[in-house]
Amino acid sequence: MTLSTMKRYEKFADEIAESIRNGVLAPGERVPSVRHASRTYGVSPSTVFQAYYLLEDRGLIQARARSGYFVREHAKHPLHEPESPVERGPRQAQTTEVDVSELVFSVLGSLKNPATVPFGSAFPSPYLFPLARLARSMAQSVRDMPPQAVIADMTAGNPDLRRQIALRYMVAGVRLPMDELVITNGAMEALNLCLQSVTRPGDLVAIEAPAFYATLQVLERLKLKAVEIPVHPREGIDLESLADSLQRLPIKACWFMSSLQNPLGASMSEDKKRALYELLHGHQVPLIEDDVYAELYYGTQPPKPVKSFDRDGLVMHCGSFSKSLAPGYRVGWVAGGRYAEQISRLKLMTTISPSVPAQAAIADYLQHGGYDRHLRKLRHALEMQQGAMLASAARHFPASTRVTRPTGGYFLWFEFPERVDSLQLFQLALAQGISLAPGPIFSATRRFGNCARLNHGHPWDAGSERAMETLGLILATF
Amino acid sequence: MTLSTMKRYEKFADEIAESIRNGVLAPGERVPSVRHASRTYGVSPSTVFQAYYLLEDRGLIQARARSGYFVREHAKHPLHEPESPVERGPRQAQTTEVDVSELVFSVLGSLKNPATVPFGSAFPSPYLFPLARLARSMAQSVRDMPPQAVIADMTAGNPDLRRQIALRYMVAGVRLPMDELVITNGAMEALNLCLQSVTRPGDLVAIEAPAFYATLQVLERLKLKAVEIPVHPREGIDLESLADSLQRLPIKACWFMSSLQNPLGASMSEDKKRALYELLHGHQVPLIEDDVYAELYYGTQPPKPVKSFDRDGLVMHCGSFSKSLAPGYRVGWVAGGRYAEQISRLKLMTTISPSVPAQAAIADYLQHGGYDRHLRKLRHALEMQQGAMLASAARHFPASTRVTRPTGGYFLWFEFPERVDSLQLFQLALAQGISLAPGPIFSATRRFGNCARLNHGHPWDAGSERAMETLGLILATF
Repeated sequence: MTLSTMKRYEKFADEIAESIRNGVLAPGERVPSVRHASRTYGVSPSTVFQAYYLLEDRGLIQARARSGYFVREHAKHPLHEPESPVERGPRQAQTTEVDVSELVFSVLGSLKNPATVPFGSAFPSPYLFPLARLARSMAQSVRDMPPQAVIADMTAGNPDLRRQIALRYMVAGVRLPMDELVITNGAMEALNLCLQSVTRPGDLVAIEAPAFYATLQVLERLKLKAVEIPVHPREGIDLESLADSLQRLPIKACWFMSSLQNPLGASMSEDKKRALYELLHGHQVPLIEDDVYAELYYGTQPPKPVKSFDRDGLVMHCGSFSKSLAPGYRVGWVAGGRYAEQISRLKLMTTISPSVPAQAAIADYLQHGGYDRHLRKLRHALEMQQGAMLASAARHFPASTRVTRPTGGYFLWFEFPERVDSLQLFQLALAQGISLAPGPIFSATRRFGNCARLNHGHPWDAGSERAMETLGLILATF
Repeated sequence: MTLSTMKRYEKFADEIAESIRNGVLAPGERVPSVRHASRTYGVSPSTVFQAYYLLEDRGLIQARARSGYFVREHAKHPLHEPESPVERGPRQAQTTEVDVSELVFSVLGSLKNPATVPFGSAFPSPYLFPLARLARSMAQSVRDMPPQAVIADMTAGNPDLRRQIALRYMVAGVRLPMDELVITNGAMEALNLCLQSVTRPGDLVAIEAPAFYATLQVLERLKLKAVEIPVHPREGIDLESLADSLQRLPIKACWFMSSLQNPLGASMSEDKKRALYELLHGHQVPLIEDDVYAELYYGTQPPKPVKSFDRDGLVMHCGSFSKSLAPGYRVGWVAGGRYAEQISRLKLMTTISPSVPAQAAIADYLQHGGYDRHLRKLRHALEMQQGAMLASAARHFPASTRVTRPTGGYFLWFEFPERVDSLQLFQLALAQGISLAPGPIFSATRRFGNCARLNHGHPWDAGSERAMETLGLILATF
């Protein structure tokens, strides 16, 4: 849904939600009465009603008999947000050889036991995905597939899928020619191919700090050097620091998540995204925009990608269905800008093509399965679960713990007291059957030693609550 | 089927087939009578009968009323086999920076038009695959798949599929622990990962001359240098030349196809494979064994891979279902020997996993779909079509043309008179709606300028015959 098609009450609901998130409306506090809100904000009473119903549905407010609406209690003693790492990290970016894989693999290995509480997982619960409906799309599309497609669709990609993806870009306000789209084996392959299209071993690549750990692994694999740019937990990449690095260093590419950054959940504002584009455009440094959480924004207004400002193909925009629909189908894509042809050729030399049946199934699902309806349900579930984890953290974690307030996705980033060693925490928690993602795996320089990323992508239950309590007990021992 | 389970009549049929193939029994010639054969070869008359029925079924001989069996006429004026390139190429191998991609892409581009006669294609006709049966396996397995599999199967691979593949190895006489198996996005990804596991940019890799063009592209992409080892059109890699190169040069890995080599169709004998293994073992140089045509042998006796002699994990054996069952499903694997763990990690950093539904569908098909029955039909079809193309070439191509006689697969390698420029031939043929794979795309040094690979993987029809005639007319203009 774009701004223009957004209903007035949805917009108003988003404004109230933002006030709740940033603490202006505290838990337990009464939200403005319908009459008051209508008068103050110049909207009709029915708009306010509709907005409050929506917010109730999203789990942010609740009605009390004869007293009106109140912000839900679940975050009664909310933890503070982390300070910006900009103020705490080194002011001048350095370049670093990356060597973090061993650590990452030991964390990933910990997730293999299905009995473990999956706070360390990279995916939401598979039970949140419409897998049965998707299976019907799969059965239908393999039955109807003309035999020659099993060969032809390998080079070009499934034409229906490409059209559906291009359509979703168009609806989101990004115009792009279909031949800019390369379908890939998930976003991970897209990111690998983009990076290889614009770098050679030894080159410098600007990444975020903290960064998605696979970013670090890929850099390590391709023998690239990382220039870590600090990320503000709410506002995203520190542009001043980036400008400084671009000035001083021969950076060959940037790999950033401009919305719902992993692990911080930060989303850059539209103005900031535009400024980022102009900065990169000035230096003619390509941007690899990793936007795999794009569909998981809370509320009603999708964040715009940096790609929407791209006027000369400098941005490679990578997306995927792995976080929003079907992880194991392994279907992602890149809108590759001026690098699309090169990316496509590299793909032919590495994996040739993503699975043809998976492409066809998703194409069918996008057309007939009700993707947007599913996404609305998914976003609501994730937002509710975020509230539950935040409230639980406030109950069980040390009071000086800080935690992010992402406006989407299924990750929270916790900054524990300095004395906490999150690698040790990881081991102790694992011994209790709880996984988590310790801070150092998100850094080329092993920073964030007192931080951890926790996944709230699984339906919240008594087991989750007990796990948080256990983590709290372990944290108290440091 | 292994030697031990092979029936006596099948073995006898294979011996007769070999005599036909190598010209001892010429087209039109009478094959020994049942009584004679029974006496001479010490087998029962019923064994001879069964063998002759099988050979008739395979299209190699035909019965004439009251006269016995005759070798089929379709290759009445057979073209000669090519000379060994060993005698003609440079004696000392040189190392070469590879730069062939542009040429390959222009050839691949030519295949996009579905109206083109696909002699240049890398795949057999999709109509030879049991796609409808496979679609049923797909529908079934996505319906029955537990939701957690859509995430869990990404790291380990589908457990049923791994077991089925390990079982096929076992039946073929190769014992390997299941954890040596890494499921990949087709063999192409497996080959890429193997190569990256044992080399760094700038390293030397021994490859075949002529080699599968993707080998050259992958070397180019990874900035590796090729050491071209000549391949005998019937007996495969020239071991003397390889031994010489291993002695002189710091070769880090070999990438060879020991059976049904692409493009020559050469298959090394078992003794030669054993000798190859011992040679590499002596130098401790790992072998990447590209064995994607393994299932497409004619007759009844599967070739053994070099992997079957591997006693300490030096061989990475790469296979795939893309040539024998379902190209676009993108499911391959590698039995990675001592490099399996490293390969598996590299995969997690590049594509994470092949498509989970495709893995499940193929696992179900292997268990319930009748893969071996399908393979027998497929082999028969390909062998018949080889006969048809050989006969057609003898009718239409210059008499001094030489052509290989592979014992499996769906490629023939033509060596035209020296004056023929196959790149020009490619252009002229394409203008007539016929594709082919010109020799130079199979060489890092642009050799084989008078050669071409033709695909007979498509059911032979009047259009194929006309296309061969047209090629003959073009060849006559050189």
